[in-house]
Amino acid sequence: MLDGIIISIDVMGGDDAPDIVIDGCEHFLTHEGQSRRARFLLHGDENAIKSLLKKAPQTRDRSEIVHTDSAIEMDAKPSQALRRGKGTSMWNAIASVKSGEARVGISAGNTGALMAMSKLQLRMKAGVQRPAIAGIWPRNGSQCIVLDIGANIDCDETQLTEFAVLGEAYFRALYGKTEPSVGLLNVGTEDLKGNAVVKAAHERFQAMDFGLNYQGYVEGNDISVGTIDVIVTDGFTGNIALKTAEGTGRLVGGFVKDALDGNILGKLAKIINARAFSALKAKIDPRNFNGGAFLGLNGIVVKSHGGTDKIGFANALNVAMRLAESNFNTEIENTLARLHDAELEIETAAEV
Amino acid sequence: MLDGIIISIDVMGGDDAPDIVIDGCEHFLTHEGQSRRARFLLHGDENAIKSLLKKAPQTRDRSEIVHTDSAIEMDAKPSQALRRGKGTSMWNAIASVKSGEARVGISAGNTGALMAMSKLQLRMKAGVQRPAIAGIWPRNGSQCIVLDIGANIDCDETQLTEFAVLGEAYFRALYGKTEPSVGLLNVGTEDLKGNAVVKAAHERFQAMDFGLNYQGYVEGNDISVGTIDVIVTDGFTGNIALKTAEGTGRLVGGFVKDALDGNILGKLAKIINARAFSALKAKIDPRNFNGGAFLGLNGIVVKSHGGTDKIGFANALNVAMRLAESNFNTEIENTLARLHDAELEIETAAEV
Repeated sequence: MLDGIIISIDVMGGDDAPDIVIDGCEHFLTHEGQSRRARFLLHGDENAIKSLLKKAPQTRDRSEIVHTDSAIEMDAKPSQALRRGKGTSMWNAIASVKSGEARVGISAGNTGALMAMSKLQLRMKAGVQRPAIAGIWPRNGSQCIVLDIGANIDCDETQLTEFAVLGEAYFRALYGKTEPSVGLLNVGTEDLKGNAVVKAAHERFQAMDFGLNYQGYVEGNDISVGTIDVIVTDGFTGNIALKTAEGTGRLVGGFVKDALDGNILGKLAKIINARAFSALKAKIDPRNFNGGAFLGLNGIVVKSHGGTDKIGFANALNVAMRLAESNFNTEIENTLARLHDAELEIETAAEV
Repeated sequence: MLDGIIISIDVMGGDDAPDIVIDGCEHFLTHEGQSRRARFLLHGDENAIKSLLKKAPQTRDRSEIVHTDSAIEMDAKPSQALRRGKGTSMWNAIASVKSGEARVGISAGNTGALMAMSKLQLRMKAGVQRPAIAGIWPRNGSQCIVLDIGANIDCDETQLTEFAVLGEAYFRALYGKTEPSVGLLNVGTEDLKGNAVVKAAHERFQAMDFGLNYQGYVEGNDISVGTIDVIVTDGFTGNIALKTAEGTGRLVGGFVKDALDGNILGKLAKIINARAFSALKAKIDPRNFNGGAFLGLNGIVVKSHGGTDKIGFANALNVAMRLAESNFNTEIENTLARLHDAELEIETAAEV
């Protein structure tokens, strides 16, 4: 039996699994995870894993393999995955969280399947309608989080309220800030702006007193250059915002590369200033912000990008580890209880 | 009376009006507009304009001033603007388009007021429910356009279809491409992804034959790094995508600046490679993409960003001039007629 903080890993999930998963574990243990108490439950093909562990001694020493022959295809529909998914590496990785054997689960596999299986096995926390996926967003010298980034396409104001609760507890767990600020993504900052759902959520946030540090509306540009810690939106808008930012980052990154590689002077400039340019590269490298947490379940599951490499997977492991080290679940339950009390108060006031 | 292509200008609209407006006219005439037949109708305070024209000889030679004492406040609500707006510089700038005196109108003033006044005076084209605002989006070596970027918060599939028609005619007018490709912004590219409105629009685009070069769904990252010319979305999502990209561009631009200015080596690198870096700066400068066209009205109105400077205003003038030089209005009417025929065909088929 492993001791320490146990992370349950779907070794077979991801475009380049199992290789990048084991390499990612090793990278994590030799970098960010070096002096921490991480232990791994490796779900997947035993022979393949054993062969990879030969080049990953740290991981080998801290892991236990749970063999399974089957894995979920990257393009399987969630419904197919639920029907045929039992016993796959992804299913088993979640099952270890459910049984309490592991503190957190992680997969770089099919997002829809992972969400469907997580909901089925772990179930929603009392007071949560549907789980959300929270993404970490780079800023200058800090990060903010945005949720939902794709699990819920159509949302009502009750869901947006739950996202606020889940997101601010997540931010506290990741960064240890006591009262993270919360904003609602909108097309303007005046009260009269926005669609009906956003306006209704804004009214709820202002009316209800459950300890939320709500700062009002934020606009798209505030995500990257603003000061709000937790940005709440529906999964349609959040997904498009996230991917738009990725595309813009890639475009501008390409322009910078062109400026540096296009001529001999650029190459010279790059050599002279190599250190600053490598720091710049790290700041806009999407691998450094990999790891989306599924929030609102009875158990923690982290989704790594399917196309990432070992560095990206190691970063998602770091997110999983931070959640496992925190008292994230208790925090969420406390805030949900406060939210429930505030809702009761409003209902009672309405009846009187 | 002026001859040439007449642009009607709200000189008093914008955070730094009237100065940046007149400076922008002069910048346009001495750069992009140099050998073109642009003439200006300058609506605003005659004394202020005359004083500014002393330092803008090209503009003075090609302009006529239409005096008015009043202007729309930058923070006026659209309803207030409609009630009290008659006779303001913004109102008069649109009136000159309505009367046929000017081919196109332009303002850097209050967006909501400009849209409300444009709708009231110019009216929607037959077959268009509500006008859209189209934005120009930078890419590597080209541009795409995105609409709606904020005029219509809640949209149905009929509106998204109209946006496609308006957008592709706009793209043809701006860039002279005969069959620009059209995509629908969504959270994935599979048929089953998206909300109900997006799915319904996707079905319409596939079923109806009105000459649209429809290429299916596109994701957020495809806006900046994809190949689709015209990207259709509702005004809520489009506005958030646009501002998110602006924020990301500013963040990454700041990282690049830090890398170059942070130390002596960076400064040296910048001097060595000055030319490439100045090209890079131009590529991500939002002023170079300023100018949102109001599409779907009986007349062309272009909105410049309110906080821009003379270079940004000159770019918006260039967008206005390109539209004025094209047969944009006829193109839109032709495509709307084809759309109407395709709709009739579907209705008739349904009745049989």
